Amino acid sequence: MQVALLGGTGDIGEGLALRLARDTDHEVVVGSRKAEKAENAATEYEEALADHGVEAAVGAAENPEAAAGADVVVLSVPAYHLADTVESVADDLSGILVSPAVGLQRDEAGLHYNPPGVGSVTALAAQAAPEETPVVGAYHNLAAGRLADLDADLDWDVPVVADDADAKATVADLTDELAGLRALDAGPLANATEVESLTPLLINLAANNEGMHDLGTKFW
Amino acid sequence: MQVALLGGTGDIGEGLALRLARDTDHEVVVGSRKAEKAENAATEYEEALADHGVEAAVGAAENPEAAAGADVVVLSVPAYHLADTVESVADDLSGILVSPAVGLQRDEAGLHYNPPGVGSVTALAAQAAPEETPVVGAYHNLAAGRLADLDADLDWDVPVVADDADAKATVADLTDELAGLRALDAGPLANATEVESLTPLLINLAANNEGMHDLGTKFW
Repeated sequence: MQVALLGGTGDIGEGLALRLARDTDHEVVVGSRKAEKAENAATEYEEALADHGVEAAVGAAENPEAAAGADVVVLSVPAYHLADTVESVADDLSGILVSPAVGLQRDEAGLHYNPPGVGSVTALAAQAAPEETPVVGAYHNLAAGRLADLDADLDWDVPVVADDADAKATVADLTDELAGLRALDAGPLANATEVESLTPLLINLAANNEGMHDLGTKFW
Repeated sequence: MQVALLGGTGDIGEGLALRLARDTDHEVVVGSRKAEKAENAATEYEEALADHGVEAAVGAAENPEAAAGADVVVLSVPAYHLADTVESVADDLSGILVSPAVGLQRDEAGLHYNPPGVGSVTALAAQAAPEETPVVGAYHNLAAGRLADLDADLDWDVPVVADDADAKATVADLTDELAGLRALDAGPLANATEVESLTPLLINLAANNEGMHDLGTKFW
């Protein structure tokens, strides 16, 4: 498979690119609004992988070109760029769209879930996507810092939501290929709200408990 | 300490009563709207404990009487009975009030978080409580079935929220005394929303993944 990480130059795009390149045989392409930015990131990821003894090629392209050939397209962009990003690649999409973004708002107490009017950022992605594109919600709860650290062991669960069973299975299988990640079925897309709202809890727990950073979750 | 479990005849009240009686030296009192119901439950808990080789006395009383002497009062009642229950014991409270209830709504997709207008059920408890009563949010994410099974090992985390640092520490310490539970500080009471909304996710995951039941969470 080919996996494109739109906005893959930062945040969880970096960690997913590194771990997909290290742990799977899939072709990984970093997308960005500017080709040069994507190329710089891809080179940087290849160097980081080489430092860990992994010889892997990481592709780079502008977002629409990256999306064009991909079986799985991950929208690793901030929530407020999500609709624009989907629009910019809509004509080129032929694969599954994966939405990992979460709407967050900070006040003096901590971080809070701040979903868009449609109920979740994942639902927003589905609304913005072409009708024939299957949309899957996943990776909302992954801490970018630990994900991008190839020395870090994870052992985290990844709740996955989608209305299209095949698309959900494809993303779940892809996730299970990554060392230390276990995909769990969280039901239809309408359950994305409950998945996304775990993210601010993880950040609040990290902020309030000494020695806890970049938290993930294991359900059992 | 004396710990009262209002509505302690069912749901997580049962598991908390059993485990407090087994794992701590605190005095446990089951409260109910009817003394007889509380007494029956207390007798049943004592028998279950005896079956597990634990000789422990479990007290029983009507809710106001149970609340009167208690250092910690757990509101183990459904969300829609919470305000009424707090009102019924308001004149008798001298300890910390603990709110574990979550507002839930089911549709065809699954279970969803359905908070009251004040933002969380914990905030509702704080609103209903006398001004001088410290309110702590805890135990929202505990699966009642596994909690009440004295043969079940837990290893679960318990996010705790409160504005009163001493009250929060008391409840966290009490929680840490229970085998397999670890209290984590989730910040002020205003962060209760993010804690409560984990509960429907746990239930959705259990509903959609074979072999997963009565889920809890470990953060790391």
